[in-house]
Amino acid sequence: MNIDGTATRSIWVEADGRSVGIFDQRLLPWALERMVLRSVEDAAVAIADMATRGAPLIGAVAAYGLAFGLYEDASDAALDAVHARLLRTRPTAVNLRWALDRIGDAVRPLAPSDRAAAAFAEAGRICDEDVAMNRAIGAAGLPIIRALAERKGGKPVNILTHCNAGWLATVDWGTATAPLYMAHDAGIPLHIWVDETRPRNQGALTTFELAQHGVPHSYIVDNAGGLLMQQGLVDMVIVGTDRVAANGDVCNKIGTYLKALAAKEHGVPFYVALPSSTYDPATPDGASVPIEQRSADEVRFVSGTDEAGRLAAIRLTGSPAYNPAFDITPATLVTGYVTDYGLLTDAADLRRSMAT
Amino acid sequence: MNIDGTATRSIWVEADGRSVGIFDQRLLPWALERMVLRSVEDAAVAIADMATRGAPLIGAVAAYGLAFGLYEDASDAALDAVHARLLRTRPTAVNLRWALDRIGDAVRPLAPSDRAAAAFAEAGRICDEDVAMNRAIGAAGLPIIRALAERKGGKPVNILTHCNAGWLATVDWGTATAPLYMAHDAGIPLHIWVDETRPRNQGALTTFELAQHGVPHSYIVDNAGGLLMQQGLVDMVIVGTDRVAANGDVCNKIGTYLKALAAKEHGVPFYVALPSSTYDPATPDGASVPIEQRSADEVRFVSGTDEAGRLAAIRLTGSPAYNPAFDITPATLVTGYVTDYGLLTDAADLRRSMAT
Repeated sequence: MNIDGTATRSIWVEADGRSVGIFDQRLLPWALERMVLRSVEDAAVAIADMATRGAPLIGAVAAYGLAFGLYEDASDAALDAVHARLLRTRPTAVNLRWALDRIGDAVRPLAPSDRAAAAFAEAGRICDEDVAMNRAIGAAGLPIIRALAERKGGKPVNILTHCNAGWLATVDWGTATAPLYMAHDAGIPLHIWVDETRPRNQGALTTFELAQHGVPHSYIVDNAGGLLMQQGLVDMVIVGTDRVAANGDVCNKIGTYLKALAAKEHGVPFYVALPSSTYDPATPDGASVPIEQRSADEVRFVSGTDEAGRLAAIRLTGSPAYNPAFDITPATLVTGYVTDYGLLTDAADLRRSMAT
Repeated sequence: MNIDGTATRSIWVEADGRSVGIFDQRLLPWALERMVLRSVEDAAVAIADMATRGAPLIGAVAAYGLAFGLYEDASDAALDAVHARLLRTRPTAVNLRWALDRIGDAVRPLAPSDRAAAAFAEAGRICDEDVAMNRAIGAAGLPIIRALAERKGGKPVNILTHCNAGWLATVDWGTATAPLYMAHDAGIPLHIWVDETRPRNQGALTTFELAQHGVPHSYIVDNAGGLLMQQGLVDMVIVGTDRVAANGDVCNKIGTYLKALAAKEHGVPFYVALPSSTYDPATPDGASVPIEQRSADEVRFVSGTDEAGRLAAIRLTGSPAYNPAFDITPATLVTGYVTDYGLLTDAADLRRSMAT
C-alpha cells in the first residue's frame, strides 16, 4: 500500500540485491524508520525485539535471515544452527517455524554453493505468496463493499474495523484491510470507523495505514460502535482473526464480540477476513480456545507521543488490572468469512474449502 | 466514604464555621488536594474551572457561594448580583440553578441581617439531602447484592460498572456506587470490574474511590466486559445515568449500551442507579435525547501521570476522531432502576413513583 504516495511493501530487497529492508514497527505509528537487515543476527534481533511484527511478516524476515546465514556458511551444520537460532527468537510463532522449515527443505537437497541464492529466492516467493493471498482476500471482499455502495447511491460506505489486521502486519494489503484498500483503489467512496482497540491501541496503526493510503477514516473509542449502529452510521463491520475454530467461532482481539453483538442487534453485516492458514479444524469451537492473559501494565499504562513528539508512556491507574487479550465471537454472529478461497458464508463451507 | 481510612464528604464546613472545603477534582485521581472556599469568587472560579464537578456537588458549592456573598452584603441587589454571577459559571447546569433559586427563595423573606447564616444553613441542608438521597439509592440496591451473595455462597459478587457515578461527583455515597459501598460496609464480599471508560477514563476515578474505601476491584478496558460475561465472571452490572426518558430508556456514558446488550445475551442483570431528579418525563424516549458531540481531542489524547508522577497528556493518533459522549440503552435491556424511591422494575413504576 502507499506510504507518502509510493506503493510500498512491509519488507523489500535493497538495491544491493542481498540485504533486506523493513520498517521499525516499534516506532509505528509515531515514526516511520527503515532498518536494513544484512545478517542472521540482524534478522534475529529484529524479530526478538519486535522491530518486526505480524505472523506473515515474521516468517518472511526469518526466511531472509536463513539466507543471510547461508551466504556466510552453506554447510548442513550451519543451516541447522541458523535455523535453531532464528526459531529461538519467538518460539511459539507457528508461521516462523513454517517459513524456516520451508527454506530448509528447499535448499538442503542443493549443493552448498547454490543454497544461499536459492534460499533468498524462496524467501521472495514466501513474500509474493503472502501478497497474493491477501490480494485474494481483498478480491473476495470487494463485491460486498461494491454492493453496499450501490445501495447507498454514491454516499460513502461506513465500515467499522477493530484492531489492526492491516498491511503492516503482512507483506502487503493486510487481511481485514485488503477489501478496504481494494474498494478505495476502485474509486468506491468509503469512510472507515477505526476502533482504538484498547489496551494496545492498534487502531492507531490502522489510522496510520489509512492516512498514508488516503482512505477517509475516523478514530473512535471502542465504546462508540454501539451508538454509531443505533444511528445507522455503520454499513458493515470487518475484522481479522487469530484463529477460527472448526465450527466457525472466531477468536479475535478483545472487544470484537461486543461489536458483533451490536451488529446482530442492528442488522449490520459482520465479516471476518482470514487467510486459510488461520482456520484451525483441530479446535472444535470457541470455548476450546485458551484466552491469553497479558500483563496488567498494558491496561494501566498507555503509550503515545508527548508534547515534544517523543514516544512516552503514562500511567492511568495504580489499581490492579485484568487483561484478557482475546474474546470469542460465536459463528452465529458472523455474516461471512472473507478468505483467499472467496467469500464463505458458514463454517461448513469454510471446512470444505480449507480441506481442498 | 473513606479517604485514608477516614469518613469523608466531597464538601465540608471548615473549622471556622464559615468557609468550606472541597477537593480539587482536576487533579483526581492523580493527587488529592484540598481547596478552601471563602468568597463568591472562590466558589465561582471552582465551578467554572471544574475544580468541582458533578451536578449535585456543583449545586452545593454554588449554594455556599451565595451564602459567602450574603456575608459581605445581604441586600436584595447583592443577592441578585451574586445569584447571576454564580449562574454564569455553568449556564446549562440544571442543578446549579435549582440550588441558587432554593437559597434565594429561602432568604429573600428574611431581614438582611439574618440572610447569610440562613443561606449557609440551607446550603448544609442541600448537602445533607443529597447524602440522604444517595443513601436511599444504596439501600434500594443492597438487597440485590445480598441476594447474589447468598446465591454465590460466600464467593465474591462480581459487579461491573461503567464511568464514574461515584461519591466524588455527589456529596457522599454516589449513585451507582452507593449500593457497592453499602454492601461492602455490610461485610458482603465484592469484586468490582471497573470499565476504563474511554475517552475520559473516568474509571480511574472509580478505582481511586474504591481503593480508598478498601473495596476489591480491577481496572479493565471497555473491550473486556463481553469476554468476562462469556466466562461467567460478571454477576451484575450497575451504572449511573445522565437522563432517563419517560419510557425508561437510559442515556448514559458512551459504551453503556454495548454492556447492556452483552448482559442481556448472557442473562446478567443490568441495573441503572438514579436520583429521582434524573427521570425526565418530558423526554418521551431515548431517540429524543440529543447526543452531545465533544472535542475530537478527548479521543486523540489521553491523560495520566508520567514517570515523575506529574500529570501529562499524550497523543494517540494524528487522524480525525469522532467523539459522541453518550449512548442510549433501551428500557428493554434494563433489569431495574435503583432509585431513592426504591427498586423499580419498569418505566411505569418509575413514572408513578416519581410523580408522587
